[in-house]
Amino acid sequence: MAQTSQSEFTAHLQTLLPDGKRTALINEVLPQLLLTLPKIAQGLRSTSVTEAGSANSFGDNQLNVDVLAENILRSAIAACPSIVTASSEEDPNEKRKAESLNSNATEQYTVAFDPLDGSSIIGPNWTVGTIIGIWDGASALSTTTSTPREKQIAAILGVLGPRTSAVVAIRIPGGQSACFEVSLADNDDAISITRPSVKLFSEAGMDGEGKKKKTRYFAPANLRSAAENPQYLNLINHYITQKYTLRYSGGLVPDIFHALVKGHGVYISPVTKSSPAKLRRLYELAPIALVVECAGGVAVDSVDGGNVLDKAVRDTDERGGLVCGNREEVEVVRAKLLS
Amino acid sequence: MAQTSQSEFTAHLQTLLPDGKRTALINEVLPQLLLTLPKIAQGLRSTSVTEAGSANSFGDNQLNVDVLAENILRSAIAACPSIVTASSEEDPNEKRKAESLNSNATEQYTVAFDPLDGSSIIGPNWTVGTIIGIWDGASALSTTTSTPREKQIAAILGVLGPRTSAVVAIRIPGGQSACFEVSLADNDDAISITRPSVKLFSEAGMDGEGKKKKTRYFAPANLRSAAENPQYLNLINHYITQKYTLRYSGGLVPDIFHALVKGHGVYISPVTKSSPAKLRRLYELAPIALVVECAGGVAVDSVDGGNVLDKAVRDTDERGGLVCGNREEVEVVRAKLLS
Repeated sequence: MAQTSQSEFTAHLQTLLPDGKRTALINEVLPQLLLTLPKIAQGLRSTSVTEAGSANSFGDNQLNVDVLAENILRSAIAACPSIVTASSEEDPNEKRKAESLNSNATEQYTVAFDPLDGSSIIGPNWTVGTIIGIWDGASALSTTTSTPREKQIAAILGVLGPRTSAVVAIRIPGGQSACFEVSLADNDDAISITRPSVKLFSEAGMDGEGKKKKTRYFAPANLRSAAENPQYLNLINHYITQKYTLRYSGGLVPDIFHALVKGHGVYISPVTKSSPAKLRRLYELAPIALVVECAGGVAVDSVDGGNVLDKAVRDTDERGGLVCGNREEVEVVRAKLLS
Repeated sequence: MAQTSQSEFTAHLQTLLPDGKRTALINEVLPQLLLTLPKIAQGLRSTSVTEAGSANSFGDNQLNVDVLAENILRSAIAACPSIVTASSEEDPNEKRKAESLNSNATEQYTVAFDPLDGSSIIGPNWTVGTIIGIWDGASALSTTTSTPREKQIAAILGVLGPRTSAVVAIRIPGGQSACFEVSLADNDDAISITRPSVKLFSEAGMDGEGKKKKTRYFAPANLRSAAENPQYLNLINHYITQKYTLRYSGGLVPDIFHALVKGHGVYISPVTKSSPAKLRRLYELAPIALVVECAGGVAVDSVDGGNVLDKAVRDTDERGGLVCGNREEVEVVRAKLLS
């Protein structure tokens, strides 16, 4: 493993953000948020899931695990002066830190997060995740026409599985995109860069050099809705006859991460009258879209077919659907499902 | 969490096997094999998957992880005098311990295992597993007509995800079946019994008391083969129109464990001319079938539709297909796919 100390992680970030203007993001926000992940992972290992394993509904233990992750992230946020505002899917009200009200620091960030995504698969001990968006300024919400593309400058998808890993995406407006993978060990504060560049390959069936045929993957969420959605059913049959490989865990983070690791994949969460939009735009769609775009892919809201990042988020409870992955795969879905 | 010391785990086994004849199984074989799982889990956390994450093929690191799990299990087996023979998917030749050749101990066991199942999903950090079958006598293979139903007396499915857990199935010929779930912590030798009884519910859509409608799950392996198998394609469309919920990780252990935790599920790995049988009967099908049967379900080989446990295993390389899960779900597949 390419062991990288935190200072080497910092050096990697400095190559991505060389203008010297984002020192708090580099030295404080990103490392401190990433270092919550091994703590959450350890919490999951030592917390009961006896009741979460029941098939009926999520009991107190389930809530305990959500609260555990929430508390770990809130503690890290409290210790980062440049994070001035935070909200989460567990506590979806933006709270500004009192001590930041008179600050005129040039770097002020808002963090919006889903502490533990994948509640239905925690019982069966499948990989789950943490989703974090990092936004410029004292709010992630828009009161004007500003969009996530302008305001959300970084995102983290934490992957809590046999290992603890994460994908980090960074895109400062006017700057380059970056997307890379890190690993996190339990017992030290080192952040290892396991892949300095995460890329969805550009042409279906071909690798980055346009040579070798690769496996193509699809992840169809809410497949039940295809019973009432002939277009979705046709799309599924398209993937089968075209011999795509199915991987669908039902966890948003592992499903997206699978595509990023394999270099190919399309995730489809349709929205119909009988299956309304349920993914939160602030806590799920926007951070995932930034990661996917920074890896060279596309993420659209299946409600209107528009790019997720181009629509202002005005309320923490706004919801949408999601189609994301390799560019040309999203275009196929747009033509067959969203038109 | 219902913390149970190893002696309490032993006490649980004694209630299941009260005749006093299986002391080595209770005190040695089952606990020592289970305690390999947290060691394998720790190995996965600290071993590089940089190359395994590549989309082309599995590199040296991948092999390292397989060998790591293999070595941990071989060490445990070496330390259990009552295990006289072992073989694995990594080293599929039954090797009898020399020191056992002149033994006339009443308990002699053969262990057949797949140290790390799910190689395609290790890179994306999805949950993987370990499969272990425990057989009476000095060989798991049959030279007569004896079947796995007569010779395989216990099985373990180890689940290596955010936590380390396992399902244990025990069925001594002539005795009761038992299936229960345990959790394993990293740093002690305690085996916690998290669910003393694991059951697939008996009627689709109903819970154990026949009252409440539950979610029904399906896991369709090798979905690509439905492109050339109209019966399989029809079956998939049946699940969609009947509004089953899709969960398919592509890992045999997590996919089966998902059904066991939820109380419902059907796993389908069809065999056709263009997609030949690939699951090993000794290392995968037989242990999974014992677990599924002990949980009240059914497991058939999709090659011939017969119960997996009723066909003698004569060679370590024999392969088959698999349909397993709740009894009536398997009957539906038998009628629609295997007839």
